[in-house]
Amino acid sequence: MPEFLKLLSPDDARKVLLSAIASTIVKYESVDTAASHHRVTAADIVAPHPLPEFARSSVDGYAVRAEDTYGAGDSAPAYLRLIGEVRMGRETELRIGSGECAVIHTGGMLPEGANAVVMLEHTQAVASHYEPDPRPRSPGVPPGDRQPLSAGDAEIEVLRATAVGENVIGAGEDVGEGRVVIRRGTRIRAPEIGGLAALGIMTIPVKCQPKVGIISSGDEVVDPHQRPGPGQVRDVNAYALASLISECGGQPVHFGIVPDETMALLNAATTAARECDMVLISGGSSASVRDTTAEVIQKLGPPGVLVHGINIRPGKPTIFGFGQGKAIVGLPGNPVSALVIGYLFVVPALQHLLGLPLDQPVPSVRARLTASLPSQAGREDWWPTRLVAPLESGQEWRAEPIFGKSNLIFSLAAASGLLRIPPEANGLASGEIVEVQPI
Amino acid sequence: MPEFLKLLSPDDARKVLLSAIASTIVKYESVDTAASHHRVTAADIVAPHPLPEFARSSVDGYAVRAEDTYGAGDSAPAYLRLIGEVRMGRETELRIGSGECAVIHTGGMLPEGANAVVMLEHTQAVASHYEPDPRPRSPGVPPGDRQPLSAGDAEIEVLRATAVGENVIGAGEDVGEGRVVIRRGTRIRAPEIGGLAALGIMTIPVKCQPKVGIISSGDEVVDPHQRPGPGQVRDVNAYALASLISECGGQPVHFGIVPDETMALLNAATTAARECDMVLISGGSSASVRDTTAEVIQKLGPPGVLVHGINIRPGKPTIFGFGQGKAIVGLPGNPVSALVIGYLFVVPALQHLLGLPLDQPVPSVRARLTASLPSQAGREDWWPTRLVAPLESGQEWRAEPIFGKSNLIFSLAAASGLLRIPPEANGLASGEIVEVQPI
Repeated sequence: MPEFLKLLSPDDARKVLLSAIASTIVKYESVDTAASHHRVTAADIVAPHPLPEFARSSVDGYAVRAEDTYGAGDSAPAYLRLIGEVRMGRETELRIGSGECAVIHTGGMLPEGANAVVMLEHTQAVASHYEPDPRPRSPGVPPGDRQPLSAGDAEIEVLRATAVGENVIGAGEDVGEGRVVIRRGTRIRAPEIGGLAALGIMTIPVKCQPKVGIISSGDEVVDPHQRPGPGQVRDVNAYALASLISECGGQPVHFGIVPDETMALLNAATTAARECDMVLISGGSSASVRDTTAEVIQKLGPPGVLVHGINIRPGKPTIFGFGQGKAIVGLPGNPVSALVIGYLFVVPALQHLLGLPLDQPVPSVRARLTASLPSQAGREDWWPTRLVAPLESGQEWRAEPIFGKSNLIFSLAAASGLLRIPPEANGLASGEIVEVQPI
Repeated sequence: MPEFLKLLSPDDARKVLLSAIASTIVKYESVDTAASHHRVTAADIVAPHPLPEFARSSVDGYAVRAEDTYGAGDSAPAYLRLIGEVRMGRETELRIGSGECAVIHTGGMLPEGANAVVMLEHTQAVASHYEPDPRPRSPGVPPGDRQPLSAGDAEIEVLRATAVGENVIGAGEDVGEGRVVIRRGTRIRAPEIGGLAALGIMTIPVKCQPKVGIISSGDEVVDPHQRPGPGQVRDVNAYALASLISECGGQPVHFGIVPDETMALLNAATTAARECDMVLISGGSSASVRDTTAEVIQKLGPPGVLVHGINIRPGKPTIFGFGQGKAIVGLPGNPVSALVIGYLFVVPALQHLLGLPLDQPVPSVRARLTASLPSQAGREDWWPTRLVAPLESGQEWRAEPIFGKSNLIFSLAAASGLLRIPPEANGLASGEIVEVQPI
């Protein structure tokens, strides 16, 4: 498919790439929950027992029978006999009978007979029986009449009616036994790790990290550890792309720098496609290298080149193909283009390989554009943009587009994110509110 | 300072916490650039040489003297004699004289005498001399009259005037020698790694990861590997907080579960404050544990407790203090509250310890709220919210608040992010456009 004869829209190109990838990574491994952050679950995770396992108070107060408080109010308190205190972390032998109550702390186990907790704030100790709690308090805390009383203090005035279940987390109210708590294809974050710990699930099955082969091509490209000779440049893309891949949960595998010859590139691509789940060929940037990449993708086997040129800037000369069952992406040699295409296409492809949902919201920062940006209607532009803090708190962030030649890596390093100019627009006007996607 | 006598606003509480932390982490280490992703630079990084080191073409075309093309147009082309081809990755011996040009590829080194490049698209080979480039092309690419010619092809028609420097990246145009390319206190991302590789800077000084001590307190709390007895619960917070800290570039250090006794907690906190840069004490959730935490923070030494209670939900019973030169944060035992406070206060504190700028934009997802949310004026609420994909592409995302008791860890695990209800609001109305901050 000759380059640029038919430029696809970015959305169409992405669809072609993702539909060619049939979530091929089925391998999974077991990891410690504590080390599972950012990994993707390979199976539904099921609660082995209810959570909580017993009814717990969600406040500090008194465990009561709700019916004993019906009709209670500031002017007509209900009087309950205090029979003791529920201690934390152990089963209580207290049994709340009619007209009785017990001190309970947040998280305490509801004693038998009780069906509600009345908050400390809605009670009052009967003054004649007042006796401060002997437990140590922080300095400066005055002994108050709203501290919990100790057992034997006899009588509590309840100043508000309490419904059955009020201020109680019932057994199984967080999750029921056997319920799926984390679906397959979920990226693990801190709340999931907390939930797994709560259930005692200390290892989980996660998707193996997809291996992404990286090949750099071009006669002028040398390893960054090397001092480039005249006409030579260091390999920027292999390092920048590897960082992007690691960040998104992939495992970069380097296949070195290959000269701009079909056979050398075909050999490297064949090895990379065999050993990896996806292959990135970051071209030298000349037209002949792009042609070599397309030719190599064709030679890897059907279906070969699927997309050759995208109506996007930067990144137009991008190639998507599929060979030996693996997605092969031909990236522009220009490091800014290569990274922008990485953010917009390689990252979603990696997420798809991991089994993450295709429709994921993209967070952005709203800001006021400080300069007008031209663009060509019909083409989608992505502009490196710096976010500048508001002059006063509460004001808007400012979006400063970074001008200058689009292929300078440090213009991207100076950017907080990318600003999309949609294909239907003829540019964006200074002063518009825009959404910048952090990179 | 007694709890809740004076609730601080979240913004004021954050200011107190951050201003007590004087960016105490001065230690740094050297890491391989390839492994520096997400680390924070400990010093300004300076370009050891200009980038690029030589003038390069940014297109495929012909290296020319711009003055030879002045006045050229479709109807009045300039004719230039082709004297050869600039090969990639080596110094060329070609010297462009008046009326001459040479084939040059994207990234090629501008030959002596040339000061501009005219794009292939704006040239035409003189037909009588046409000779196709013998290099291999991808299948299906027709031999065209706009392919670059080989040396000896004699004459090129230039159809457009070219300015000095056009399509050329001058030596040092990306960065000049000695310029600061990455400022101290920058979080390293893929573009920075690319830029460092371009300059051959293969190790960089980064801040050491701040050590964050985690203490869990409460008589009812047991290690998650253990089967809880009656009235006991597993330690959720230590695991969830450790995950959050790792994610933000900190190093969690566990100091175990401590019973709700002042001396035990003081011993653990003293050790943690000595060994770490910040200490989190995640309380059991009862009032007495909160009191113990405040007392221990006072006993660690001045200034002691600085914030005791924040006008926020969840997370009101949060304590910020400072002792032995370290920030000590008393988190609520409720795991949802602890994590929300973690996102809103511990993460900024960690970023400050790392030397990152205090004013950082917060990315969010705009979505339409699917239900009305109540809130209490004067208090800032953060509501766990699920983002639901639009029914049709191009439509809005929907923000579904997660109802139910606020202290259930799986309600947070079900959320895509947190939705802020500002203190000046009395709630949010169904159908409003809101901004959800991903967690």
